[in-house]
Amino acid sequence: GFARVDTAREARQGVAECVYAPGKRTGHITAIVAELLDRSDGPVLVTRVEAEPARTVLAAHPGGSHDPAARLLAWRPAPPDGFRLAILTAGTADEPVAAEAAAVARAVGLEVTLFRDVGVAGLHRLLDCAEEVAAHDAVVVVAGMEGALASVVGGLVACPVVAVPVSTGYGAGLDGVTALLAMLSSCAAGLTVVNIDSGFGAAMAAHRLAMAVRSRRGPG
Amino acid sequence: GFARVDTAREARQGVAECVYAPGKRTGHITAIVAELLDRSDGPVLVTRVEAEPARTVLAAHPGGSHDPAARLLAWRPAPPDGFRLAILTAGTADEPVAAEAAAVARAVGLEVTLFRDVGVAGLHRLLDCAEEVAAHDAVVVVAGMEGALASVVGGLVACPVVAVPVSTGYGAGLDGVTALLAMLSSCAAGLTVVNIDSGFGAAMAAHRLAMAVRSRRGPG
Amino acid sequence: GFARVDTAREARQGVAECVYAPGKRTGHITAIVAELLDRSDGPVLVTRVEAEPARTVLAAHPGGSHDPAARLLAWRPAPPDGFRLAILTAGTADEPVAAEAAAVARAVGLEVTLFRDVGVAGLHRLLDCAEEVAAHDAVVVVAGMEGALASVVGGLVACPVVAVPVSTGYGAGLDGVTALLAMLSSCAAGLTVVNIDSGFGAAMAAHRLAMAVRSRRGPG
Amino acid sequence: GFARVDTAREARQGVAECVYAPGKRTGHITAIVAELLDRSDGPVLVTRVEAEPARTVLAAHPGGSHDPAARLLAWRPAPPDGFRLAILTAGTADEPVAAEAAAVARAVGLEVTLFRDVGVAGLHRLLDCAEEVAAHDAVVVVAGMEGALASVVGGLVACPVVAVPVSTGYGAGLDGVTALLAMLSSCAAGLTVVNIDSGFGAAMAAHRLAMAVRSRRGPG
Amino acid sequence: GFARVDTAREARQGVAECVYAPGKRTGHITAIVAELLDRSDGPVLVTRVEAEPARTVLAAHPGGSHDPAARLLAWRPAPPDGFRLAILTAGTADEPVAAEAAAVARAVGLEVTLFRDVGVAGLHRLLDCAEEVAAHDAVVVVAGMEGALASVVGGLVACPVVAVPVSTGYGAGLDGVTALLAMLSSCAAGLTVVNIDSGFGAAMAAHRLAMAVRSRRGPG
Amino acid sequence: GFARVDTAREARQGVAECVYAPGKRTGHITAIVAELLDRSDGPVLVTRVEAEPARTVLAAHPGGSHDPAARLLAWRPAPPDGFRLAILTAGTADEPVAAEAAAVARAVGLEVTLFRDVGVAGLHRLLDCAEEVAAHDAVVVVAGMEGALASVVGGLVACPVVAVPVSTGYGAGLDGVTALLAMLSSCAAGLTVVNIDSGFGAAMAAHRLAMAVRSRRGPG
Amino acid sequence: GFARVDTAREARQGVAECVYAPGKRTGHITAIVAELLDRSDGPVLVTRVEAEPARTVLAAHPGGSHDPAARLLAWRPAPPDGFRLAILTAGTADEPVAAEAAAVARAVGLEVTLFRDVGVAGLHRLLDCAEEVAAHDAVVVVAGMEGALASVVGGLVACPVVAVPVSTGYGAGLDGVTALLAMLSSCAAGLTVVNIDSGFGAAMAAHRLAMAVRSRRGPG
Amino acid sequence: GFARVDTAREARQGVAECVYAPGKRTGHITAIVAELLDRSDGPVLVTRVEAEPARTVLAAHPGGSHDPAARLLAWRPAPPDGFRLAILTAGTADEPVAAEAAAVARAVGLEVTLFRDVGVAGLHRLLDCAEEVAAHDAVVVVAGMEGALASVVGGLVACPVVAVPVSTGYGAGLDGVTALLAMLSSCAAGLTVVNIDSGFGAAMAAHRLAMAVRSRRGPG
Ligand SMILES: Nc1ncnc2c1ncn2[C@@H]1O[C@H](COP(=O)(O)O)[C@@H](O)[C@H]1O
Ligand SMILES: Nc1ncnc2c1ncn2[C@@H]1O[C@H](COP(=O)(O)O)[C@@H](O)[C@H]1O
Ligand SMILES: Nc1ncnc2c1ncn2[C@@H]1O[C@H](COP(=O)(O)O)[C@@H](O)[C@H]1O
Ligand SMILES: Nc1ncnc2c1ncn2[C@@H]1O[C@H](COP(=O)(O)O)[C@@H](O)[C@H]1O
Ligand SMILES: [Mg+2]
Ligand SMILES: [Mg+2]
Ligand SMILES: [Mg+2]
Ligand SMILES: [Mg+2]
Ligand SMILES: [Mg+2]
Ligand SMILES: [Mg+2]
Ligand SMILES: [Mg+2]
Ligand SMILES: [Mg+2]
Repeated sequence: GFARVDTAREARQGVAECVYAPGKRTGHITAIVAELLDRSDGPVLVTRVEAEPARTVLAAHPGGSHDPAARLLAWRPAPPDGFRLAILTAGTADEPVAAEAAAVARAVGLEVTLFRDVGVAGLHRLLDCAEEVAAHDAVVVVAGMEGALASVVGGLVACPVVAVPVSTGYGAGLDGVTALLAMLSSCAAGLTVVNIDSGFGAAMAAHRLAMAVRSRRGPG
Repeated sequence: GFARVDTAREARQGVAECVYAPGKRTGHITAIVAELLDRSDGPVLVTRVEAEPARTVLAAHPGGSHDPAARLLAWRPAPPDGFRLAILTAGTADEPVAAEAAAVARAVGLEVTLFRDVGVAGLHRLLDCAEEVAAHDAVVVVAGMEGALASVVGGLVACPVVAVPVSTGYGAGLDGVTALLAMLSSCAAGLTVVNIDSGFGAAMAAHRLAMAVRSRRGPG
Repeated sequence: GFARVDTAREARQGVAECVYAPGKRTGHITAIVAELLDRSDGPVLVTRVEAEPARTVLAAHPGGSHDPAARLLAWRPAPPDGFRLAILTAGTADEPVAAEAAAVARAVGLEVTLFRDVGVAGLHRLLDCAEEVAAHDAVVVVAGMEGALASVVGGLVACPVVAVPVSTGYGAGLDGVTALLAMLSSCAAGLTVVNIDSGFGAAMAAHRLAMAVRSRRGPG
Repeated sequence: GFARVDTAREARQGVAECVYAPGKRTGHITAIVAELLDRSDGPVLVTRVEAEPARTVLAAHPGGSHDPAARLLAWRPAPPDGFRLAILTAGTADEPVAAEAAAVARAVGLEVTLFRDVGVAGLHRLLDCAEEVAAHDAVVVVAGMEGALASVVGGLVACPVVAVPVSTGYGAGLDGVTALLAMLSSCAAGLTVVNIDSGFGAAMAAHRLAMAVRSRRGPG
Repeated sequence: GFARVDTAREARQGVAECVYAPGKRTGHITAIVAELLDRSDGPVLVTRVEAEPARTVLAAHPGGSHDPAARLLAWRPAPPDGFRLAILTAGTADEPVAAEAAAVARAVGLEVTLFRDVGVAGLHRLLDCAEEVAAHDAVVVVAGMEGALASVVGGLVACPVVAVPVSTGYGAGLDGVTALLAMLSSCAAGLTVVNIDSGFGAAMAAHRLAMAVRSRRGPG
Repeated sequence: GFARVDTAREARQGVAECVYAPGKRTGHITAIVAELLDRSDGPVLVTRVEAEPARTVLAAHPGGSHDPAARLLAWRPAPPDGFRLAILTAGTADEPVAAEAAAVARAVGLEVTLFRDVGVAGLHRLLDCAEEVAAHDAVVVVAGMEGALASVVGGLVACPVVAVPVSTGYGAGLDGVTALLAMLSSCAAGLTVVNIDSGFGAAMAAHRLAMAVRSRRGPG
Repeated sequence: GFARVDTAREARQGVAECVYAPGKRTGHITAIVAELLDRSDGPVLVTRVEAEPARTVLAAHPGGSHDPAARLLAWRPAPPDGFRLAILTAGTADEPVAAEAAAVARAVGLEVTLFRDVGVAGLHRLLDCAEEVAAHDAVVVVAGMEGALASVVGGLVACPVVAVPVSTGYGAGLDGVTALLAMLSSCAAGLTVVNIDSGFGAAMAAHRLAMAVRSRRGPG
Repeated sequence: GFARVDTAREARQGVAECVYAPGKRTGHITAIVAELLDRSDGPVLVTRVEAEPARTVLAAHPGGSHDPAARLLAWRPAPPDGFRLAILTAGTADEPVAAEAAAVARAVGLEVTLFRDVGVAGLHRLLDCAEEVAAHDAVVVVAGMEGALASVVGGLVACPVVAVPVSTGYGAGLDGVTALLAMLSSCAAGLTVVNIDSGFGAAMAAHRLAMAVRSRRGPG
């Protein structure tokens, strides 16, 4: 076969392998989803999938849903398990990445609150909601340009902060590389960083946190 | 004064501002430590400090200790709080960075187990301890060259994985930039990454995780 | 003329000059193929050629074949000569590059087995076939993102390993540069690397190996 | 001669050519200073000059002074002309660059106030002095690592902000290139940026501002 | 809501938040403009907006104007306040960036004179107008390729010079990065630089200068 | 222990793990060599080791030898097995890297001929020995600056060619990165490349070739 | 006006300013050409102009010609003046750049011979014509990928060699940057280099050579 | 032997192979010089050689001379042949590179005039000598930082201009890479560029020009 789906991943890591759509033919996506639905029990996700192929795959496997802003196909989303994730954006240009992070996080059972457009050029916007943000179990900061929001948030909250650099902007922004390097060099201790534009990566990092918290809390 | 120490950070984030020694005069370090010891209650840390200045600062502030491999000065380490952190290295060249991560993590109250020299060129070394690693609350992977260990570990364990790229190596390793980019591009979902050689950053990220777990566990 | 085809290359190196299609007019490709078919005896290859021009060139020179996944036009493929080449991919995104490697390798007389979608995020997939892979004369590893598969394979097999970085992925993957640098920095000794996306280069490197083996084996 | 000193620059731009010491022999510096003192009326400056050569040059041309933290030699400093410049640093590592900016600015007649160690990881430090900063005619922000302080200050004050990236830090900080790119990509509109570690450049930019203000204010 | 418009910015910095159009849906731009017109008194600007969406937004909010060369939408431009800004271009390829700088500058109340096509390959063109340029309060230099015009102008005038690197050109021009680095490394003291192609950034930097001059001049 | 030596590697790959000396304490090297000598049967190698530590380790483990030009420590070199390797250098600056390649290759049983200083600026030097070179089983090309020798050799011989970029040179040579990129982009089909300055990597790649040839030749 | 054409350049440098078409409106090109034809006597050139706008401009200014391969519009080409320029290409992908170099060179009065497709992978092709090439007054080498042809030619001929890196290729070729760096690092002494893909630049450099030769030869 | 000296180069190119000293043992340099003096008739040069080894080599081969500023050893300099080369520097930091260019140029028979410290920040210095510069057969421009001098000179003179980027400066100057890229992107048509700090390369390029002129002039 053209793919060797890692269905054992669900047992190992709580979620089966997620399908990355770009470059895959729609027929292949449909077949992989079939196998995943068949051989796992939890959420099945396809990321970065556009409306057109999404429709075709959904027709073959009813019961799923497509979030066009997040470009996510999801079947059998996990029930919310009490882990509260705050997702912040610096500006409206960060929306698509935040949408992916939010949709993936919800599909794997996290409870998400979005704090949008709180970039540091108008600092009061962040200060107004800082306490509310700090009350979450973890924070994802989505920011392009110079990514300064991550440092400021990292200095305000005590919980884990995952920074997602965004590729929007121009010139010296270098398609997100500047935000990436800036977040990695942050003066706020204990920030961690995922790949440029990877709302998916941030959500999966948060899911690992949620599993750690959960396993400590006991059966509940 | 030459410095405006952020002593409020302890209240906000569980640990007061840590001092980064490079570029600071020994007298300044001594003065900042005085202020930190005076105006906070928990651990006081100075990172990347060599033996010579360490001796001087310790003479002024007895009761602390210097770990030369980790280049860390620490006073009033936090008592262990049950959070189990595994730190893995790919090879012996990664030792200094792992030493910093371990020393900082222990100083802020985490319980650390080291798994050394388990690089993927001899995979059985990792597979032999994989189960033991997976039983921890979080994993820090310290690796230079191509950093492949992070991806392999990320695929084997369910808990949070923080990857630390290391600057050793030569040529195409680009002083750690290659490992950094590789870890950010990992095919293992949900890895997060800190700055090159930043054992400190990884430990502080783990500390944020521990606080999140702790706050969920209740007063306990 | 617009081209000075190196037909002497067949005598020198076992295969005549291969034509790189991008940027060439279809009429020029047809003329170069004519010259190559006329003045050499072995395989004649055109790489990276799309369906449309392929059809036109094939019409002018019947007897060849076009592999659309590999984007390869080939006439007079060499008969299989017993050299067993394993081609591995990390994920389905690596398929087109692996297809080029396989098609070129077969056209110059190698025997190819494909091991697909055995990336390290689900390590058991690779371990399940490791022994089978190790039984080949040489291995080509095709992988994008962080390219960790090359290091792991390099540690498992004793034979020559040629790593091909792939340009798929996004952000920190830097269009294959990260995989390239990672493969060059591999902790597995004796890996060699070809250009990004160059299935052609890997196959030709394997062909050089096969010629070395063959010349040693004697006429038999 | 070995140099063609641009003494006409004083008439054109208010300050004669400043001497950049690195790579120049002490004897040459002494000779150039002689010419500048002789053929201009205002401040004469030598930048980046260490204690040893400074002593020699001062011996030949008494009446000047050497600021070792700023590595600046100055003769005939301009009298203060009422332009109030605020210089902010993110941390103590930025001190040498801020010292150069302050010393050059004072030598050309600006009135400087330093706000040190107000990095965004402990935001309250900046907020505590924001109003005081905003009352100046211009602000220079000196910051390394990710340089986020520049964006935050840019959002808080209305006056011109000149950002100076600093080369301290390690790894992803890329010797100041990350701070440089981040400052250029800032979400705060109307920031301008000078070269890495160029306290001199920032002070001279402020001097141009002061001249513009002065020429508008009239003879005074 | 999808956006948290920083209307307080007008009080803080003299101009309300400007809208960056790329990536925003036309409906969102219309809504943000509504809020800005409603909650501020001065100029309202949308940058980098193409003819098509501009028409739609203007229909909803009559009284504004669209400058297609500058790609700027503006309502309630500020009255001219006597600050004279010279904008120079090296060649005709720099026109669009200069157009944005000029349109934004005029919208916020500056008086703009354009000096076009005065690149250093034909130096007499610049020398012919140098005196006229030097009589302005500030100069913006817009130049691509190697950006040498900024250095030459920086050596000829005493007032503030803001350099804008332009992304046109090819090869070693690296999409404006070469001009950017060259301007930052300029031998002319006190130049400052904004992001590649950021006519907007240069105009806003000039606006900060104008405010500094204005606040010094007194009420008028 | 501080190290987990991969002694199983001998069984898997024909040579036990080789020790990379930089960053390791001499005592650790001595201990690792002890373990390798004890638990394997074939060659034991330490690379990049300077004269001083080499002496100490040899004193503890007599019977080995140190090649100072190659910076290699070797015990129990393998007997020559008939595989003929040609190593070419472009100039005398490439000597140290070629020395490492030659010493490692001989230690693992290959027969090495060196062709020195045959760079393409004086092409006749290469043409004079081209036939002799082509008679080998494999060729290693060691070249810095622009690395053109690899392409020319790749076009002249039919056997496997491993290119080693060298870090000598200055400016645009970018410490070997230019030669590396040039070799990867070579117009000669089927070249493979190892890391900058990695004489070791080239020798180990040749060893993999030798094993492939050997396994095909049969026991005899 | 939108342009300040440097018509004085003809007196200064032998050829009036050449027009770079990309980014210019066709109407503007027509107007600039009008001015150049009117105010100079020699060749008038427009580079990088596509068929469509070329037709329009030619209609307005008859008597010129458009070379579509070179994308050059030329009026009043200079008569051949005896300077013999050899232009070499490594492969057929270098044709468009060589075409621009040839067309511009001929338009300014040089005598051009093309040697095509003589890349070093089939060295005999170059050796066969080396003597003929060496008989020219200057050589332009056009090569992409690793650009090795420039070094080999530089070692074979005594006259000036101008190397033009070409952006074709993929992956490690980095859009011509690799060839550029390689040519600058060449082991052949006295090569000079122009921008990537700049056939225009190479031809103009050759024109400067021709003028130097001519001025020395006397009116003759 | 350790070297294969290209003595045939004198016949081919007018000057025998020049020795690049860095990385070579003094004894080897002595031996190579012996061979060159013995087997050629013209100038013998060793570049980048420090005072200490220079003394030793000169002792073995009397009759040569060492220029410490140029770091050049030369025997049998060619007699001046009437080719007038102007070498310009932007500032005193460019002196060492200009010294190498001048010394090599004189050793191969060119007549050199130096124009020092004529950088564009004080343009009148260049304009004062522009006519004198333009009267030469060729110009070498040596400049660091942003390298703008090359563009300005390129626009003022008609003869060949070779630009040499210099590695002095800091930050965004990127060790000469910025000047290199800027010179390659120059708006002045027909500039050519050599490697960073390569005074040698510029002189050898000028020598090729001189040979072209000479061969045209006839026997003289
Ligand atoms: N052309 C532009 N270039 C850079 N920044 C801009 C531009 N136009 C608006 N901005 C800034 O972008 C921010 C708005 O971002 P957003 O929330 O995505 O609309 C504001 O802080 C503006 O100052
Ligand atoms: N949006 C995404 N970004 C990065 N990795 C992803 C994304 N979606 C899925 N993946 C990962 O990609 C791998 C699947 O690759 P493939 O075999 O090509 O489908 C899995 O290991 C997923 O964890
Ligand atoms: N193909 C080309 N590549 C680089 N520069 C060119 C080219 N064609 C014309 N030029 C230069 O571009 C400048 C004209 O720019 P512009 O004012 O934008 O027309 C002149 O200085 C020409 O020497
Ligand atoms: N897919 C490919 N990737 C890299 N090189 C190739 C490829 N196909 C053909 N070549 C090489 O490209 C050269 C032909 O270039 P050209 O003269 O432009 O056709 C030959 O030396 C081939 O070995
Ligand atoms: Mg916003
Ligand atoms: Mg090890
Ligand atoms: Mg897969
Ligand atoms: Mg601080
Ligand atoms: Mg122009
Ligand atoms: Mg040599
Ligand atoms: Mg060809
Ligand atoms: Mg000077």
